[in-house]
Amino acid sequence: MSEKTTKKSKTSPAKTGTKQRPKRRSIRESLSLLYSSKKAGMPPGTLLNPSEAEKPSTKVHIIEFDEYRFAENDADSINDCIVSSEKPGVTWINIDGSGNADLLETLGKSYGFHPLVMEDIMDTDQRPKIEWYQNYIFIVAKMLCWNSVDAEIYREQVGIIIGSNYVISFQEKAGIDVFDPLRERIRSSKGTIRKQGADYIAYALLDAIVDNYFTILESAGEKVEDVENILLSNPCQEALKTIYALKRELLVIRKSAWPLRAVITEMEKMETPYIRHSTKIFLRDVYDHLFQVIETSEIFRDMLSGMYDIYLSSISYKTNEIMKTLAIIGTIFMPLTFLVGLYGMNFKHMPELDLPWAYPTLLIFMVVIAISMIGWFKVKKWI
Amino acid sequence: MSEKTTKKSKTSPAKTGTKQRPKRRSIRESLSLLYSSKKAGMPPGTLLNPSEAEKPSTKVHIIEFDEYRFAENDADSINDCIVSSEKPGVTWINIDGSGNADLLETLGKSYGFHPLVMEDIMDTDQRPKIEWYQNYIFIVAKMLCWNSVDAEIYREQVGIIIGSNYVISFQEKAGIDVFDPLRERIRSSKGTIRKQGADYIAYALLDAIVDNYFTILESAGEKVEDVENILLSNPCQEALKTIYALKRELLVIRKSAWPLRAVITEMEKMETPYIRHSTKIFLRDVYDHLFQVIETSEIFRDMLSGMYDIYLSSISYKTNEIMKTLAIIGTIFMPLTFLVGLYGMNFKHMPELDLPWAYPTLLIFMVVIAISMIGWFKVKKWI
Amino acid sequence: MSEKTTKKSKTSPAKTGTKQRPKRRSIRESLSLLYSSKKAGMPPGTLLNPSEAEKPSTKVHIIEFDEYRFAENDADSINDCIVSSEKPGVTWINIDGSGNADLLETLGKSYGFHPLVMEDIMDTDQRPKIEWYQNYIFIVAKMLCWNSVDAEIYREQVGIIIGSNYVISFQEKAGIDVFDPLRERIRSSKGTIRKQGADYIAYALLDAIVDNYFTILESAGEKVEDVENILLSNPCQEALKTIYALKRELLVIRKSAWPLRAVITEMEKMETPYIRHSTKIFLRDVYDHLFQVIETSEIFRDMLSGMYDIYLSSISYKTNEIMKTLAIIGTIFMPLTFLVGLYGMNFKHMPELDLPWAYPTLLIFMVVIAISMIGWFKVKKWI
Amino acid sequence: MSEKTTKKSKTSPAKTGTKQRPKRRSIRESLSLLYSSKKAGMPPGTLLNPSEAEKPSTKVHIIEFDEYRFAENDADSINDCIVSSEKPGVTWINIDGSGNADLLETLGKSYGFHPLVMEDIMDTDQRPKIEWYQNYIFIVAKMLCWNSVDAEIYREQVGIIIGSNYVISFQEKAGIDVFDPLRERIRSSKGTIRKQGADYIAYALLDAIVDNYFTILESAGEKVEDVENILLSNPCQEALKTIYALKRELLVIRKSAWPLRAVITEMEKMETPYIRHSTKIFLRDVYDHLFQVIETSEIFRDMLSGMYDIYLSSISYKTNEIMKTLAIIGTIFMPLTFLVGLYGMNFKHMPELDLPWAYPTLLIFMVVIAISMIGWFKVKKWI
Amino acid sequence: MSEKTTKKSKTSPAKTGTKQRPKRRSIRESLSLLYSSKKAGMPPGTLLNPSEAEKPSTKVHIIEFDEYRFAENDADSINDCIVSSEKPGVTWINIDGSGNADLLETLGKSYGFHPLVMEDIMDTDQRPKIEWYQNYIFIVAKMLCWNSVDAEIYREQVGIIIGSNYVISFQEKAGIDVFDPLRERIRSSKGTIRKQGADYIAYALLDAIVDNYFTILESAGEKVEDVENILLSNPCQEALKTIYALKRELLVIRKSAWPLRAVITEMEKMETPYIRHSTKIFLRDVYDHLFQVIETSEIFRDMLSGMYDIYLSSISYKTNEIMKTLAIIGTIFMPLTFLVGLYGMNFKHMPELDLPWAYPTLLIFMVVIAISMIGWFKVKKWI
Repeated sequence: MSEKTTKKSKTSPAKTGTKQRPKRRSIRESLSLLYSSKKAGMPPGTLLNPSEAEKPSTKVHIIEFDEYRFAENDADSINDCIVSSEKPGVTWINIDGSGNADLLETLGKSYGFHPLVMEDIMDTDQRPKIEWYQNYIFIVAKMLCWNSVDAEIYREQVGIIIGSNYVISFQEKAGIDVFDPLRERIRSSKGTIRKQGADYIAYALLDAIVDNYFTILESAGEKVEDVENILLSNPCQEALKTIYALKRELLVIRKSAWPLRAVITEMEKMETPYIRHSTKIFLRDVYDHLFQVIETSEIFRDMLSGMYDIYLSSISYKTNEIMKTLAIIGTIFMPLTFLVGLYGMNFKHMPELDLPWAYPTLLIFMVVIAISMIGWFKVKKWI
Repeated sequence: MSEKTTKKSKTSPAKTGTKQRPKRRSIRESLSLLYSSKKAGMPPGTLLNPSEAEKPSTKVHIIEFDEYRFAENDADSINDCIVSSEKPGVTWINIDGSGNADLLETLGKSYGFHPLVMEDIMDTDQRPKIEWYQNYIFIVAKMLCWNSVDAEIYREQVGIIIGSNYVISFQEKAGIDVFDPLRERIRSSKGTIRKQGADYIAYALLDAIVDNYFTILESAGEKVEDVENILLSNPCQEALKTIYALKRELLVIRKSAWPLRAVITEMEKMETPYIRHSTKIFLRDVYDHLFQVIETSEIFRDMLSGMYDIYLSSISYKTNEIMKTLAIIGTIFMPLTFLVGLYGMNFKHMPELDLPWAYPTLLIFMVVIAISMIGWFKVKKWI
Repeated sequence: MSEKTTKKSKTSPAKTGTKQRPKRRSIRESLSLLYSSKKAGMPPGTLLNPSEAEKPSTKVHIIEFDEYRFAENDADSINDCIVSSEKPGVTWINIDGSGNADLLETLGKSYGFHPLVMEDIMDTDQRPKIEWYQNYIFIVAKMLCWNSVDAEIYREQVGIIIGSNYVISFQEKAGIDVFDPLRERIRSSKGTIRKQGADYIAYALLDAIVDNYFTILESAGEKVEDVENILLSNPCQEALKTIYALKRELLVIRKSAWPLRAVITEMEKMETPYIRHSTKIFLRDVYDHLFQVIETSEIFRDMLSGMYDIYLSSISYKTNEIMKTLAIIGTIFMPLTFLVGLYGMNFKHMPELDLPWAYPTLLIFMVVIAISMIGWFKVKKWI
Repeated sequence: MSEKTTKKSKTSPAKTGTKQRPKRRSIRESLSLLYSSKKAGMPPGTLLNPSEAEKPSTKVHIIEFDEYRFAENDADSINDCIVSSEKPGVTWINIDGSGNADLLETLGKSYGFHPLVMEDIMDTDQRPKIEWYQNYIFIVAKMLCWNSVDAEIYREQVGIIIGSNYVISFQEKAGIDVFDPLRERIRSSKGTIRKQGADYIAYALLDAIVDNYFTILESAGEKVEDVENILLSNPCQEALKTIYALKRELLVIRKSAWPLRAVITEMEKMETPYIRHSTKIFLRDVYDHLFQVIETSEIFRDMLSGMYDIYLSSISYKTNEIMKTLAIIGTIFMPLTFLVGLYGMNFKHMPELDLPWAYPTLLIFMVVIAISMIGWFKVKKWI
Repeated sequence: MSEKTTKKSKTSPAKTGTKQRPKRRSIRESLSLLYSSKKAGMPPGTLLNPSEAEKPSTKVHIIEFDEYRFAENDADSINDCIVSSEKPGVTWINIDGSGNADLLETLGKSYGFHPLVMEDIMDTDQRPKIEWYQNYIFIVAKMLCWNSVDAEIYREQVGIIIGSNYVISFQEKAGIDVFDPLRERIRSSKGTIRKQGADYIAYALLDAIVDNYFTILESAGEKVEDVENILLSNPCQEALKTIYALKRELLVIRKSAWPLRAVITEMEKMETPYIRHSTKIFLRDVYDHLFQVIETSEIFRDMLSGMYDIYLSSISYKTNEIMKTLAIIGTIFMPLTFLVGLYGMNFKHMPELDLPWAYPTLLIFMVVIAISMIGWFKVKKWI
């Protein structure tokens, strides 16, 4: 039990990836529920550099392409990241490790991003949302991965800034991401991706994130069905705890998907030069997928509630069955035990004791009692 | 129990129709809940040919008619399916086996359908929806059939494309469909159907699908009432599992009907040349039926919840009844058994044992105890 | 129990009125939940003549009046029913037995009613609704009567067609209706009714139907309070079944009243020459009554749920009380019975048996044990 | 129990005020849930004179004032109540006993009130509502008083008609009202009340009614907390019934306050000369108070539900505790009793019986069994 | 238990801060649920001076600043608080002790505040709200602090009035506030605060209040997880009471945060010179935080409900486990005890007693019975 209590757990999820004994992450960590109270009282827009120990390594990956051209490289200096607004083609800058305050500050100043945007990228406890600015659109989404070490869903914030000819994506840390197939598609020029603009890349990022929700949901669905089969055959206390854990997993999925739906809707509806009409048709597709994720997770939730009911009533039923047995045994043997005790008494004057046919008569009498008892139970439908 | 666990079941429902030992289809299969994750990372609009083994047979059936003319034949080549926009009358092309990627691709290119439409037809995990394009309307609906082999509802996706003078309907596989009466009506020119346009055929298809929901719902309703009768007379664990299974069936119905309602509403409201006003009056009728399906399935759901409560409280009540009996037996015999044990002791000096009237006195005393106990229970309303 | 199972019951409610042994009508019948699947595949607007056996007798009653004139007679031929649009005054045609397809067809053609309207009148499973046509308004409402033979609510569909100078009302069958007081008011020219138009007659019909809901609701309310009193004094299994039956009755009421509310609202709001402003003030009154019916039925529903909770916890409480008694008896007598058994053993060498004060000592010791046990229970608040 | 059953109770609440043995009023009476079915079939607007026995005494109180003038008197004849529309200042006519049909009819005709308004005033089962007419506004509200005789909330309908220079308020019966402080304020010219118009008087009446809801709610709140304290210390069946009764009280409050909120909102929004802008600011204040009443009553409701859960689980917990004791006693003594019974058998050939150390050995063995049993329970955390 | 009952508790929360033995504050106090009924009947806008004993000490703190200037001092007389509308820079007046009626009245008259505003500031039972007046905006918010003495959340009303160049904040009493970091920021001119206007100070106040909600919520979250760990390992009655107490804490948080959200939304939307566009971007940030507070508190609430279910079913499960043991013991030993009693009877003619192999045979028979019983339980999956 002691492994489960993480009362004084740090909010930084970086620690949980270490190879030490895996600890269950608290629900607050899983959902990044609480805005870190460290910054209370600070002016808004302050970028706090994390302490040296927690400082994540930062990796900047840049892909530039247009219909005929393709270039891919890791950025050495911050200057590589600055995209002139007249540059042709599309540049996708992917930054792993959004905790690097210095980098973000330099980047934000170069592009002229609002300080609150930079703060929201660093603070990884944001809800999925979309914000419209003069020269760019800022989107926050949540990426889910299955962390097989902790046997838990790992939730990472992805910030996306869409400009006229660039997309910048910010991830919490390097290593885990779901964008590799997208990179491959750009490299190999599969489909029409090379002919599209920055908005299409942003769509492709969101699509990759949402497609990955399905993977997570599918594994949750398998577990839901496992629990169901266990419950229907042999309800046990463990199954109940699994139900409780699965409800949490579904909560993490739902809390990631639900607000993203509003983001997509807003992207579809808003009139802005940064999102072209042809891309909006594809966004509708993402919306459909998101809807399916939410609907499915709610069906699973309903099923889990139904299973809880099944569990409870199975326990009641079992108790009832056991009670029956006890009652039958008790009801049959208590009178009989009384009778044999009666004739075990040592009174001097008990005339029955001396009768020669007394013993067999008593035996027969007791058999009659037992049989009539059983008949009575049959009438009462206990057996 | 082992038959019920289909943990590693394939998403392709084609397998379940085989004549082998019937397996319970998982809820994920029944509802086509999960967008197949196979395609994650592929460009949108990709049509994946299913593996050779799963490849369904494709059957194309074409009905052409106008007020005076009627022709019906199975298409040999894909060219038979191409309808010139100037061709008079109405052509209804029914394609069984929507998994044939080659056919769909050719068809899509001939008519100029959007790649996402073709993808949605192949991917049979879509929610019912409607999409408006320049030259056609695309509708996804869910057809329900009762599969008597598996004793389960079988759910199949139907895609409908409405053009100016043609309707194309896509079904998952050949064999099961609910459109035969419609075909018969066209053949025999019953009612005014031959005078109507493509939109009326689309209405008739939707009407046939919704009418079939009633059949499914009616059989569910019968089972609901059976369970109710069982529960009111003799609550057992099996009934509970039936309730759980029925809730699932209703879920499948509701999930098919609910989004279709929005589809019909949108068809009624939208201003488009492809749906004439006279047809909209008929669509209102379909809407009314759908509403009834949803309402009825919710009433059944409520009834099942009520039955669950009845079940739980019946169990409680029964346990209580049994407890009473146990308590009565225990309370009566325990003191008596103690007494007879008391006089079974082997102490040398127990003066009562030698008294000649001791034994009958004790017997009377015990009868008095038993009677007063029973009186006390009567006061407490236990018996 | 066998009387309750009406699995293969016909949808025609005509049978239930027969004087044979009353059968409980299923919820599907009570609510007319299911659109009869017989007609699946037929062209819309088809009027199916019921089989000869089920054919209801049809009665047509005509009342004509204006401020100075009043005529009332039963129609002999269908021609009596045709009202010229220039005829002065108001004609109210009441048709009992809406299952007569021939009559309806003739009537529909004479007046030019839409075939779907005629179909909706015959198909008595419609939800309450309103439909606007060029020359008339079509309303479907549900009339409730208390059927004392079956001890059940009887639900009948009433179709109302409002024209410029006529109202036609269709009832399922003759015999039961709530319109007699209205007829009397017209006959005796009470209030201003003779000066009003066809819309006012329609209002009066709806008002009579809604007023009757109160009668039904009041009797349900009395039963709710009876159950409550029973439950608070002595919870039994029967009361639970009554709760369940009452919930159904309330469902029937609610399902009749709820959609009618939308009908009235639409009548109030729509701009049409067929409903005058002065009548709309009266419709607001009907709306208020309907709102009260719905609200009251929901309060009753809440109360029934509360009673179910009371019932469940009463059972729990009783079980707990019985457990206490058992535990006390068991706890007191088990050690004592052990002790008397101990000294009933037949070992040769049991020195206590020979001591002269052993028996009284043991008796005192047992009393001490019993008293201290009872004291312990008092501390634990069990007694 | 018999006192609680008021099955055939009359709808007239006048009876309940009598000094006889107090009966619990049914929920239907408390909420005036049911529109009296007596009038079914009568033309709308009919004012039914109550039977002689039930006829309430009527009292008409008139206050006339403007900034400099104040007059107060009881009306002798109906003519005193007629206010000319040119009369300066404000006249507030308060009529106790709204059941006097003759008075209402005369009044209604003099002022030209709509018959339905008069009917709504007499029929005291109206929901709170507002209706706009050409020359006046009609408001229905519900006044709540704590009736200490019946220990129940007493609910009375207040009808308010606002004209240009008069306010008429109708109460069900004399004796109980919450308007005395308002009268005092007018008499003593406290605040600015004398300078205000008829709309301000109407506001003051509503404010007085809503302020009184707080008094009722506060006493309910105290009872809620009492029950809570009882439940947390010693859950008993009585507390449950109190919870049920409190839920009802809250229902009465909520059903009075909820529709009144819509009334106030409509008064604030409507453009009418009868309600001036300066009064609307004060109405906003009333609205805030109403909102608080509703919110608070819902919090109490939630708390009561929470307490029910606490109660149920306390019972479960107690049963569980008792089961433990029973199980421990049973598990320890049953084997021991068996053993002593074993050596109480009278077989001739039982070699153990003759061994000199058999008895002490058995005693020690039994102690060992008992101790190891207790140890096992400790491991299982039962004790 | 007696400490918990605060039936006749005063509404003034001032008392609870005293150093005497801490009493649990009732939910009504915690939520300031009830508008004090003391004032019923008084004209609106009346400021009641609290009784001498309850009179709180009042402290007025004034901060004046612009980009270059900063002055901070405690006000001596009321005149120090009057800010001329032409005075440059921003003046923030913080008044601790909003119960001082004289001060408020003088202040209100000087600035021309509406009497209802002053009343709302004094009456600390207001819901968070915003009101727009000609020359100023009035906001009511709720400040939460963790009161470690009572181990309870302390809730204080903060009234904020925003003028063109001044902000006045009213707190219930001196001592506790969350505005110190803000004061420090102004003093040290951190960020851009000195360049901003009165609206930014108001934003900063609201931001400080909302940031503090996170602190409260975080501590609640820790407790939620503690309870969860306790429940999963060893469900006990205490945990249930903690759940109940936590639900209350969350209710206090939610009731403070929820209506504030509407306040912020209205501030963002309204067109007013008192709130500039640049400040609205920051308000959006506060809104996001509030949303997170509400969402998190609802997740915690859900988790607590889930835990209650876990608790209930754990109890059921445990009872079931104990029943099993009892049943097994009973079922095994009852027949055996009967058998040994049988051969303990003192009948003269019991032939078995004399057989030399009878005793060992019986022993073996009893072992067989016991073993077959255990086998039967294994089959029934009881052990």
